Amino acid sequence: MPGLAHSIAVVAPASRLTPELAERVTALAKAHYGARLTLFFHPQCFLSAGHFAGDDAARRDAFVAVANDPAYDAVWIGRGGYGSCRIAAEAVAGLDEVARRKTYLGYSDAGALLAALYRRRIGRVVHGPMPADLLRDGGARAVLRSLRYLVDGAPDALEPSLGGGKPAAAFNLTVLSSILGTPLEPDLSGHVLMIEDVSEHMYRIDRTLFHLASTPAMRSVAGLRLGRCSDIPENDPDFGLTAEEVARHWCGVSGIAWLGRADIGHDVENKVVPFG
Amino acid sequence: MPGLAHSIAVVAPASRLTPELAERVTALAKAHYGARLTLFFHPQCFLSAGHFAGDDAARRDAFVAVANDPAYDAVWIGRGGYGSCRIAAEAVAGLDEVARRKTYLGYSDAGALLAALYRRRIGRVVHGPMPADLLRDGGARAVLRSLRYLVDGAPDALEPSLGGGKPAAAFNLTVLSSILGTPLEPDLSGHVLMIEDVSEHMYRIDRTLFHLASTPAMRSVAGLRLGRCSDIPENDPDFGLTAEEVARHWCGVSGIAWLGRADIGHDVENKVVPFG
Repeated sequence: MPGLAHSIAVVAPASRLTPELAERVTALAKAHYGARLTLFFHPQCFLSAGHFAGDDAARRDAFVAVANDPAYDAVWIGRGGYGSCRIAAEAVAGLDEVARRKTYLGYSDAGALLAALYRRRIGRVVHGPMPADLLRDGGARAVLRSLRYLVDGAPDALEPSLGGGKPAAAFNLTVLSSILGTPLEPDLSGHVLMIEDVSEHMYRIDRTLFHLASTPAMRSVAGLRLGRCSDIPENDPDFGLTAEEVARHWCGVSGIAWLGRADIGHDVENKVVPFG
Repeated sequence: MPGLAHSIAVVAPASRLTPELAERVTALAKAHYGARLTLFFHPQCFLSAGHFAGDDAARRDAFVAVANDPAYDAVWIGRGGYGSCRIAAEAVAGLDEVARRKTYLGYSDAGALLAALYRRRIGRVVHGPMPADLLRDGGARAVLRSLRYLVDGAPDALEPSLGGGKPAAAFNLTVLSSILGTPLEPDLSGHVLMIEDVSEHMYRIDRTLFHLASTPAMRSVAGLRLGRCSDIPENDPDFGLTAEEVARHWCGVSGIAWLGRADIGHDVENKVVPFG
């Protein structure tokens, strides 16, 4: 298994980063770790091709390059947005033995890539804050949480329900739904599955939970924990149920065990969830 | 197979209708068909329970009641919105032999119910305009198109690419994605699959097409036709690809044959697509 990280490479398999953000994250890392940590933002992070941080080939190749490069201990996904599913299968197919000794950390859209890695049990796959979280109010705390996990293995960075003896995994609900039944879907049987979402209407959250709970493979999880569903747009008329009520409903319908809440979400409190 | 309809029942498995809309549709039907057609709006259409036209039991029971009632030749879904997936499996399980002699017509959210019916080959399943389309500018034309199909079997109501000797099916793309891998998913192997969508960002259309094109069962369709994707919210930054370019991309990646456009969508031009 991968050890603690002294050198971390950042790539952007979805949306682009600005050089200014990279400089701020680099300064933050330097202030906290000095020469103990090298943080490398791959130039691909700053490319632009329509919605994406460079075209599919550029994003895939940058990911494969840093993953297969023994100079880096960890690959940190720079930002969510959208685009990982477009390159995940090819990217993972291009990895070699070096890539198996690394940690891969991100969340949101990056879930498609984390899923593909975890499906093949490549490296240590981790759900947690990304460099772009620095743009949030108080975001330094979130960014440092991931660095503290990667560099120091800090136990207080971890989602607090972890450690009950069952493997865990965490996903953005909508992203997980979009990979169900595809070659990116990981085997989550026996896992505590944590989900979170952002900017989805309640009717969409309900529909996505229907999809998850009605998928036979998902019924083999050890149970479901609901992270935060934030920035829910107004439903007209009012949906009538909260996200937790909806999650409990679909757990009841499907027989998936309802395990309570998880301390994850699109916010600065988002805790770290190593898969497995 | 079902014949032409003289008596049509309207139910609302998703969002509610207003009595005023029902009166207007009834008046339109009467003006065109007089005593040749009886149109019955089940009182469930006007119920309200949060987002839905009554709770799950009320919506399910109304559907089952009219489907199993020999007094009606066809069941017309009153409106989309959201909610059919919540009741589709139980509703279809409650149908008897009478229900097999009927036509079921709707689109959008109703696709979850149409899928469940088609999976079991119950009745004639049809994608086409609903009573709520009367609320669109020029909507009488859309509503009358479905009535002309149901009552007269009018050939010019049909989507113009039909008739090439291959079975067809039509779905809202997002709704189809949400039932993939669930007990509602129908066998579409060998079918010309028509899809349309509304009010989805380009990145969501791309992601949903990734899901569809990456699902092994979907790769057995005879080919894909893209209906209209309307009211696409602004993408920031601009996505860089149109809906047709995205559809062609995923056809290329998956090996699904690209067959061109389909004359369906969330608009008054939405043509009728009988499944099979």
